[in-house]
Amino acid sequence: MTAPTDHKRAAARTLISVDAMGGDQGPAAVVAGCLISAKANPDISFILHGSEAELKALVSKHPILDNRTTIRNAVGVVTMEDKPSQVVRTGKDTSMWSAIESVRTGEAAVAVSCGNTGALMALSMIRLRKLPGVNRPAIAVLYPSSNKQGFNVMLDVGADIKADADDLLRFALMGMSYARNGLDVARPRIGLLNVGTEEHKGRIELKEAHDLIRDHAREAAFDFVGFVEGGDISGNKADVIVTDGFTGNIAIKTGEGTASLIGTRLREAFKYSLLSRLASVLAYTSLMRLRLKIDPRRVNGGVFLGLNGTVVKSHGSADATGISAAIKLAAQLSQNGFNDKLAARVAAALPSEEQAPE
Amino acid sequence: MTAPTDHKRAAARTLISVDAMGGDQGPAAVVAGCLISAKANPDISFILHGSEAELKALVSKHPILDNRTTIRNAVGVVTMEDKPSQVVRTGKDTSMWSAIESVRTGEAAVAVSCGNTGALMALSMIRLRKLPGVNRPAIAVLYPSSNKQGFNVMLDVGADIKADADDLLRFALMGMSYARNGLDVARPRIGLLNVGTEEHKGRIELKEAHDLIRDHAREAAFDFVGFVEGGDISGNKADVIVTDGFTGNIAIKTGEGTASLIGTRLREAFKYSLLSRLASVLAYTSLMRLRLKIDPRRVNGGVFLGLNGTVVKSHGSADATGISAAIKLAAQLSQNGFNDKLAARVAAALPSEEQAPE
Repeated sequence: MTAPTDHKRAAARTLISVDAMGGDQGPAAVVAGCLISAKANPDISFILHGSEAELKALVSKHPILDNRTTIRNAVGVVTMEDKPSQVVRTGKDTSMWSAIESVRTGEAAVAVSCGNTGALMALSMIRLRKLPGVNRPAIAVLYPSSNKQGFNVMLDVGADIKADADDLLRFALMGMSYARNGLDVARPRIGLLNVGTEEHKGRIELKEAHDLIRDHAREAAFDFVGFVEGGDISGNKADVIVTDGFTGNIAIKTGEGTASLIGTRLREAFKYSLLSRLASVLAYTSLMRLRLKIDPRRVNGGVFLGLNGTVVKSHGSADATGISAAIKLAAQLSQNGFNDKLAARVAAALPSEEQAPE
Repeated sequence: MTAPTDHKRAAARTLISVDAMGGDQGPAAVVAGCLISAKANPDISFILHGSEAELKALVSKHPILDNRTTIRNAVGVVTMEDKPSQVVRTGKDTSMWSAIESVRTGEAAVAVSCGNTGALMALSMIRLRKLPGVNRPAIAVLYPSSNKQGFNVMLDVGADIKADADDLLRFALMGMSYARNGLDVARPRIGLLNVGTEEHKGRIELKEAHDLIRDHAREAAFDFVGFVEGGDISGNKADVIVTDGFTGNIAIKTGEGTASLIGTRLREAFKYSLLSRLASVLAYTSLMRLRLKIDPRRVNGGVFLGLNGTVVKSHGSADATGISAAIKLAAQLSQNGFNDKLAARVAAALPSEEQAPE
């Protein structure tokens, strides 16, 4: 493992590296998000990467932010259309590259970006490199659920399209670490996504992974609940849902699409008649309360796991609230020394012949 | 193909073979569902399979149903806990077996059951056998969507956990036939589920399937929209979503779970205060209107495709409304001569050396 002491120093300061240029709403929304976070949390400070002139103008208006922000000039911007392979080759001048560089050097423990996911993953992989014992990094998201904390951790949701049994075990360990450090679940319940809960169901690699994860539960202090089904992603059977990136990506997009269809139909239903319009006025606060609970802006932040450093990916369309939620998550992970703990956890699960010498 | 003339005769009569014993709510709910359908549609008649004494008592109360119903005595009942392999070996006396037998003999073109899905699939496979050219049968469901007809056809959602490129082509053709005959979409748009819409994305078999399906679009008169994502299952980009049974099963259960979580949260939000309770009273009709549009009872009926005969699987928990919806779908498919058309469509897509002699 590279330079854990550097990571720890950064964690103590809670310095967050922020790509200020990547999102659809431009640097003003990113700075507004940082401002919300700066007001809410006196312990965090920022490195903002992007156009120095633009960022200076935005930050200098707010002394509470200005005092705690370092601006690092980067003239290039990764767009949503840029190909990951191209960004890796020619993106050295971009704010995204620069934001990851601050994690690579150990200056910050966590980077936040709302830019192009593919490019961010490719850059993170190449610049930060995989942790020892990790073959496939994963993207983890928080999915609204009926459990106590209101969210399940789900991974992988699209870093890669495949995962073998060993990868799925690593995902379980990384997801457990994330649930513990990001959601404060002391003893996470881990479930392996399948088409049925009986042990004989599903693909070969899932049966292998089932036994591997089960055998690590005791040492790693989690509860393995075995196979879970699609309905359990939003349920209360597990706190961590483990799956390959193909299945996970399709599942979360199906869930998002379904939620969005219900939202549309709900609005239509309330527009139907005069009485329903009146009801919608009275129901307004109730509907807002519902929205707060399942608002994607508040559960913002897919997290890249399995690298030397943590990268929080915010939605491309994130506004100030969304960006602030991603920063809050990044700060919590940084303060908990999350990535070092995760690295230790994954390393401990390696077969002994693979373990790096002390 | 076996006895198309028999199938056609059955289709003309629109005789529906109904497993009356399989559902959670017992034969009373099934008979109540048949009664709703009998009142709504004078062209259909029924064979009810199950306990003769029980069914006679239930049916004889309603002359409109009694006149059009044949009761076929079957003393055994397949429970939700029964293993498919066991039902296949020892289930000859069950109402489920008997219901499928009526399709096998050509007496009815379609069977309806709300029993154990695994057992129903296994029995259907073994008794009805696969259509020429079909390697893997598929289960297709209607998924609420924002397109004109309000539903997409999605398949496979769990008949098998795998599908190669050839299977996915057959699914596309079968799904197209279903959209045309079950949803009245003259020229269905077909999408292949993947983690991104770019042609280079996803697994090898998906890229192969992409080209295979594209190459059959013209002859089979559908529009191929290429790769679609999880969010498009409830969207308006395609009318038929093609995927393997593992991915499809997890996707629909994720969608159902998410919809159910939103429903719970919505009810909580409306119970929060006096004002929100009042709003919920006023909003009642709006919410009911919403429910009608996305009510799973009204989109009831997964359909087994790729066999010599069609089997409509209703939810295990289906009530009279749900069962009636499944019967309506079965009647429409039967009246359209659906299974013969599907068989012809799949046979036409066979490589010439595999085609059976005329």
